[in-house]
Amino acid sequence: MGKVSVDDIVLTPLRRVPVAGGDVLHAIKRSDPGFSDFGEAYFSMIELGFVKAWKRHTRMTLNLVVPIGRVRFVFVDDEHRFRELETGEDHYCRMTVPPGLWFGFQGLAAPLSLLLNVADIEHDPSEVERKDRDDIRFDWGSRT
Amino acid sequence: MGKVSVDDIVLTPLRRVPVAGGDVLHAIKRSDPGFSDFGEAYFSMIELGFVKAWKRHTRMTLNLVVPIGRVRFVFVDDEHRFRELETGEDHYCRMTVPPGLWFGFQGLAAPLSLLLNVADIEHDPSEVERKDRDDIRFDWGSRT
Repeated sequence: MGKVSVDDIVLTPLRRVPVAGGDVLHAIKRSDPGFSDFGEAYFSMIELGFVKAWKRHTRMTLNLVVPIGRVRFVFVDDEHRFRELETGEDHYCRMTVPPGLWFGFQGLAAPLSLLLNVADIEHDPSEVERKDRDDIRFDWGSRT
Repeated sequence: MGKVSVDDIVLTPLRRVPVAGGDVLHAIKRSDPGFSDFGEAYFSMIELGFVKAWKRHTRMTLNLVVPIGRVRFVFVDDEHRFRELETGEDHYCRMTVPPGLWFGFQGLAAPLSLLLNVADIEHDPSEVERKDRDDIRFDWGSRT
């Protein structure tokens, strides 16, 4: 997966189109920056204050979009540089995350936030590494 | 787009994986039935009781998933056959809808439901036909 830095994460603002009865929210198009291939789309829910950490994909590029609620993401690279990003209804964007970064995330909205990942490969447990929450020091508590 | 029938819609049950702090919900994989190509993924929100109708795609195949709330879909083919389907958190599945069917949908959950469409082509207004709600008779009112 080469040398990857937290600076390699690409943020792309997304459009929310106002529609009577319910808005339309863009997520990702084949021709968008950050799109390489389609493998799988799946959702993760995250409850207010809850933390899911840490995980690292060795092959998957993630395209993360939060249409409901608000989520804090924390990314860590091999140089132990941290990058904290928040996205959700109020700051609606797509985060393209290359393989090789550790990350965790925390729900910042009640009762829960919804995260879509449009990944370039299908889920494959053999390319996922995990660490316990305490294995990488980060103060999640101040936001719960 | 050939002769298409409401019976050509394919329903695929989807897994909701229980996870502490927020479940993981499958949507669509490259190797899944119903997947042909990736063009675009986008969300539509639909408020409780509200109806969005009618629309017909002449080229796009839709893959519809409702991870939040509950949505009633009504499909109509050229033989004027109707097919009514409900999906959402409590009956979580993917609906693969071929081009050529008229459809409308209605939110059945408060405050709103969220619909993901994983489409095989990018949005293209030239392949979308529209009718007013009253142009196709259907009694939406009993469920609001």
